Amino acid sequence: MSLLVTGSIGIDTVETPFGKRDDVIGGSAIYFSYASSFFTPVRLVGVVGEDCPKPLLNVFEGRDVDTSGLEIRKGSKTFRWHGSYVKDMNDAETVEVDLNVLAERAPKIPENFLDSRYVFLANTHPSLQREMLCCLKSPRLIIADTMNLWIQTTRDELCKLLGMIHGLVLNDGEARLLTGKKHLIEAARDVLKMGPKFVVIKKGEHGCMLCTVNDTFVLPAFPAERVVDPTGAGDSFAGGMMGYLATQGGSISPATIKRALAFGTVVASYTISDFSLGGLKATSRDQIDERWLQFKQAMTF
Amino acid sequence: MSLLVTGSIGIDTVETPFGKRDDVIGGSAIYFSYASSFFTPVRLVGVVGEDCPKPLLNVFEGRDVDTSGLEIRKGSKTFRWHGSYVKDMNDAETVEVDLNVLAERAPKIPENFLDSRYVFLANTHPSLQREMLCCLKSPRLIIADTMNLWIQTTRDELCKLLGMIHGLVLNDGEARLLTGKKHLIEAARDVLKMGPKFVVIKKGEHGCMLCTVNDTFVLPAFPAERVVDPTGAGDSFAGGMMGYLATQGGSISPATIKRALAFGTVVASYTISDFSLGGLKATSRDQIDERWLQFKQAMTF
Repeated sequence: MSLLVTGSIGIDTVETPFGKRDDVIGGSAIYFSYASSFFTPVRLVGVVGEDCPKPLLNVFEGRDVDTSGLEIRKGSKTFRWHGSYVKDMNDAETVEVDLNVLAERAPKIPENFLDSRYVFLANTHPSLQREMLCCLKSPRLIIADTMNLWIQTTRDELCKLLGMIHGLVLNDGEARLLTGKKHLIEAARDVLKMGPKFVVIKKGEHGCMLCTVNDTFVLPAFPAERVVDPTGAGDSFAGGMMGYLATQGGSISPATIKRALAFGTVVASYTISDFSLGGLKATSRDQIDERWLQFKQAMTF
Repeated sequence: MSLLVTGSIGIDTVETPFGKRDDVIGGSAIYFSYASSFFTPVRLVGVVGEDCPKPLLNVFEGRDVDTSGLEIRKGSKTFRWHGSYVKDMNDAETVEVDLNVLAERAPKIPENFLDSRYVFLANTHPSLQREMLCCLKSPRLIIADTMNLWIQTTRDELCKLLGMIHGLVLNDGEARLLTGKKHLIEAARDVLKMGPKFVVIKKGEHGCMLCTVNDTFVLPAFPAERVVDPTGAGDSFAGGMMGYLATQGGSISPATIKRALAFGTVVASYTISDFSLGGLKATSRDQIDERWLQFKQAMTF
């Protein structure tokens, strides 16, 4: 089943204890698309400026990602982010950020994408996220991500969005900020009251937590031997999760979401093993399935 | 199989967002003994001062804990700790601490305890831990805990101890301090090189990690609805873990340790549900087994 994703596309400069990479491809929609394309065809909607080097955009060559919704906007500049994990691998320090084209109008969803049944709204202004949703004909599963900035500056808009989606993915700090609750289960319960049927709280190296009205499920991160660059881990996690969900059809049970979270966890473990998309590019669906099984067996006691 | 534990016994004053309790029973050996006594007979070795109110020491009434190794030392004062979790439930702030009798000579292990096969050396000076070990006739499984203070001040003594034990239990910060490695799996591997066959790293609300030369296993904490007082969670975790191990006989496989970690996790989830020993006192082996099964099922995907 086709999976529509919209989010940021950027040119990243990243420093970690393992080195530095200048001007590599990044952004939430890129990581999400690559990760989910291991499972299902992906439709990408995003925008870059005319400065974006063509080779960077060839990242999806040979993969089932429809990039016809990727706009290269004349006269605009691509989103850029320069981050450093040198001090703390669990917390990126933003050295420099230029929103550029991301601060302009949203890209248009191509006509032939409007029948998408699975939709992931990667982190962006909640008004834009709602705008995207309103165009779609009959979405079956809508999951959104958000961030501190929108929680703090556009809370009302975000709350409206929460009433329109099935699932929210956010990190622990964002969940606490959104609800004012320190205890994560309490925070998740409060998010559920705002609309979503389920919430997935990402805890970085500590894994993730799924909450529905009746269930709480915690899963550790895959014990990664070598973390080279954590950039995109959260978006890859969401991509693996939703890519799997898009293949499941029928009703989405908590058991299905649990398996999906484990796929997200495994896909993210490949992302962090190298810079930019290097880790994902070096893996295959077979390897992902094998590690998933290994993870499942390890979690059995 | 009898399980010998030696560690601190104290009078605690604890503040959390849920209130304050003055002069309640605490200390590593107390929490460990109570927790492990759900599984196996326990032999407690510890020392308090003559100021210790008798009712506090009646805590093991009706439980299979042999307190004949509990010395009430004339002319000495009991160890006291006053801690606050008001600012951060994951990090106790020590308001006041008086080592008192803990700064004096170690208590003696009773003659009839010397044949103990399972031994837990709760956190104390590594020289005292070694002294205890040397008296024992034929210990089968020795697990020790330690803390920042000994890693920083008595590193050589601690390293000698590590060559004499089978397992080390410590928290993430301590593992990093001991090895100088930030990445927890690398830190655990370095600990293994110092002697123990396995190391269990406690990560508080984020669960625990087991490392052997061949295996890495991560387990989240039980998703607790209500955390009232985290005091003793780590010691209860170790108690549940080792209490279960002491009932297993035969060779201790990684699979057995995994099940044991899950029991430790479940027992700790009761500890933090109330102040002092309130949470443990209110539960039963049946309830522990039931929650263990629930945890096991929740971790299956």
